[in-house]
Amino acid sequence: MAVARITEIIGSSQKSWEDAVKNALERANKTLRGLTGIEVTKMNAAIGNDGKVSEYRAHVRITFILEG
Amino acid sequence: MAVARITEIIGSSQKSWEDAVKNALERANKTLRGLTGIEVTKMNAAIGNDGKVSEYRAHVRITFILEG
Amino acid sequence: MAVARITEIIGSSQKSWEDAVKNALERANKTLRGLTGIEVTKMNAAIGNDGKVSEYRAHVRITFILEG
Amino acid sequence: MAVARITEIIGSSQKSWEDAVKNALERANKTLRGLTGIEVTKMNAAIGNDGKVSEYRAHVRITFILEG
Amino acid sequence: MAVARITEIIGSSQKSWEDAVKNALERANKTLRGLTGIEVTKMNAAIGNDGKVSEYRAHVRITFILEG
Amino acid sequence: MAVARITEIIGSSQKSWEDAVKNALERANKTLRGLTGIEVTKMNAAIGNDGKVSEYRAHVRITFILEG
Amino acid sequence: MAVARITEIIGSSQKSWEDAVKNALERANKTLRGLTGIEVTKMNAAIGNDGKVSEYRAHVRITFILEG
Amino acid sequence: MAVARITEIIGSSQKSWEDAVKNALERANKTLRGLTGIEVTKMNAAIGNDGKVSEYRAHVRITFILEG
Amino acid sequence: MAVARITEIIGSSQKSWEDAVKNALERANKTLRGLTGIEVTKMNAAIGNDGKVSEYRAHVRITFILEG
Amino acid sequence: MAVARITEIIGSSQKSWEDAVKNALERANKTLRGLTGIEVTKMNAAIGNDGKVSEYRAHVRITFILEG
Amino acid sequence: MAVARITEIIGSSQKSWEDAVKNALERANKTLRGLTGIEVTKMNAAIGNDGKVSEYRAHVRITFILEG
Amino acid sequence: MAVARITEIIGSSQKSWEDAVKNALERANKTLRGLTGIEVTKMNAAIGNDGKVSEYRAHVRITFILEG
Repeated sequence: MAVARITEIIGSSQKSWEDAVKNALERANKTLRGLTGIEVTKMNAAIGNDGKVSEYRAHVRITFILEG
Repeated sequence: MAVARITEIIGSSQKSWEDAVKNALERANKTLRGLTGIEVTKMNAAIGNDGKVSEYRAHVRITFILEG
Repeated sequence: MAVARITEIIGSSQKSWEDAVKNALERANKTLRGLTGIEVTKMNAAIGNDGKVSEYRAHVRITFILEG
Repeated sequence: MAVARITEIIGSSQKSWEDAVKNALERANKTLRGLTGIEVTKMNAAIGNDGKVSEYRAHVRITFILEG
Repeated sequence: MAVARITEIIGSSQKSWEDAVKNALERANKTLRGLTGIEVTKMNAAIGNDGKVSEYRAHVRITFILEG
Repeated sequence: MAVARITEIIGSSQKSWEDAVKNALERANKTLRGLTGIEVTKMNAAIGNDGKVSEYRAHVRITFILEG
Repeated sequence: MAVARITEIIGSSQKSWEDAVKNALERANKTLRGLTGIEVTKMNAAIGNDGKVSEYRAHVRITFILEG
Repeated sequence: MAVARITEIIGSSQKSWEDAVKNALERANKTLRGLTGIEVTKMNAAIGNDGKVSEYRAHVRITFILEG
Repeated sequence: MAVARITEIIGSSQKSWEDAVKNALERANKTLRGLTGIEVTKMNAAIGNDGKVSEYRAHVRITFILEG
Repeated sequence: MAVARITEIIGSSQKSWEDAVKNALERANKTLRGLTGIEVTKMNAAIGNDGKVSEYRAHVRITFILEG
Repeated sequence: MAVARITEIIGSSQKSWEDAVKNALERANKTLRGLTGIEVTKMNAAIGNDGKVSEYRAHVRITFILEG
Repeated sequence: MAVARITEIIGSSQKSWEDAVKNALERANKTLRGLTGIEVTKMNAAIGNDGKVSEYRAHVRITFILEG
């Protein structure tokens, strides 16, 4: 039977949390294969000197199938 | 005094979590009346073979007034 | 060494949760200085008589540096 | 063997949380049979313009036996 | 897009927790269609006068597709 | 320095949760000395065949000083 | 759109938890305006030398509208 | 009214978690009377040098009636 | 002093959760050395069209010693 | 197989949390045998009139083997 | 009866978490009176380019009496 | 935008938890680059036959930047 692994990464973006998740997923695809699902577990952000969000950050738990 | 009930449903969408919530709410309106509030309790997604999100899923707790 | 404080506020919007967070942040900037970060801890909404979201609400924990 | 179901409802009262629980239970008895237990999971309240509680609310998880 | 609902039931058995889950699932199949998944969230038991388990109980969250 | 211990007991009452806590505390005083504090961690109840509460139950964590 | 803030206070009473919540709310009304809701998050108590409750304490999260 | 106490013990077994729970319960019966219920709160295990489970461990919360 | 790492994997089985844990452990032994313990953190399952469990899944946190 | 029990105690110290844990452990050794492990679950402190810590307190869960 | 308030601050230090807590407490004493207790709820740290801790951070919940 | 990963390791020490964290961090620096932060999520310890701590253990979540 298949066995999967879960890893937690943090994506970031200057545009939105949705984009931060997308960036996390893109990076994961560079080194992992067999991705089957994600879950967003935390949405936070850094605030700049102007009092606005300077970096959106999304914590993402990624599930992927372990081969062989 | 009014009594309300809470039910948990999962909406899905190919576009976004915001849309998944909207789909959940639309479906709830077909069978429930007196909806007063929602809370998003989980945001996850299925990933397709191309490594991208194939289906956004939002867990939504829905509160509605129980009549009579 | 710097000491920071965390306060919890609730932003609202008729458009989206993203906008509700922005409104919370804008209001915080009126009375607080030295904001360094935020975390979204809850996303809920009020539903109107038409069964649609009438007000998006985002609970936001805000961190800011305490001066002197 | 018996199978039970758990449903979550919110009772309200202008007098007390104890009364809000009672109202929730009374309403549940109108549509459900075989109730065996309850658990209070949240006690909150709405505050009126006079700064006093205008409505006590109790979240109640209700267990009841599923027949046949 | 499909919308699913989650309901929580409690199965019981005189043999084991595994059997209690099975009983919960069998009962759910009598009234629900489109079941897609379950999660065991609690395993407890009643103890008889002889100090042994008299009834195994498993809390099970069941997900099923809402039609139409 | 003093060392304290925490023990968890469940009081019951046919009148109210407040009374169930009192019963728990009275029983604790029979066998324990040096009680300094309590915390109510759960309020549940058994429901009788008439659909009303037959027994209020309060889970209470009790702190008491360990002598010598 | 309105922005609200949540603050956590602890009310106390020699009579009951219900009274401890009321005391917390009364004190909040002295310095805060626009209160809209409360939630009781913890109920504990100090025990006196006679083994009885000497002071009921209720932790209360208070929501109030931030003006302007 | 009856007052109960909850104690937490850890049973172990070389066969299974089910057996570890049974061992915990057997040991509890040696020193406690009036057991009414158990809840399994954690299932872990030690792994031996061969990479297989060498000891199953089950954390069990046991409820028993306090006499007199 | 030794340093260990914890990784989370999901084992699956068509027979039971016990077997799903075993499969997770067997797969872990292929790529990891120095395993010392496991903890089962979630037990869920996929349901087939016949309303029965088609795949048991166990989330397992695995601890292993980091060499050198 | 061995069965262990977990008990929760609170150690205190005027010097540090590390010392409060040590005091808790020393006291436990007076009445318990077969201690195998501890976990610190809470670190709090009382503050004196001078605004400084007057007593460090550490909540400690202690595991010990139950004999025979 | 006295009413207290809880506020959450983050102390930092280049030496240790113990020192970070002390810094948080010192800062709190500048603007707050009637402090009665603290609880450490989180211990994290920033890591510098040399791979070592550059700043210890302790999240501290502070309780203080509200006057009049 | 940068993407980071979080991994959980357990450091140990015969001296203190502070030292256990340091050991965990030192080991992480051998195989990971771009460490930016840590969080201590659990502090436990093994107790020896003399009833004293034989090994302090600290669970540490480590965040590090994923290159390229």
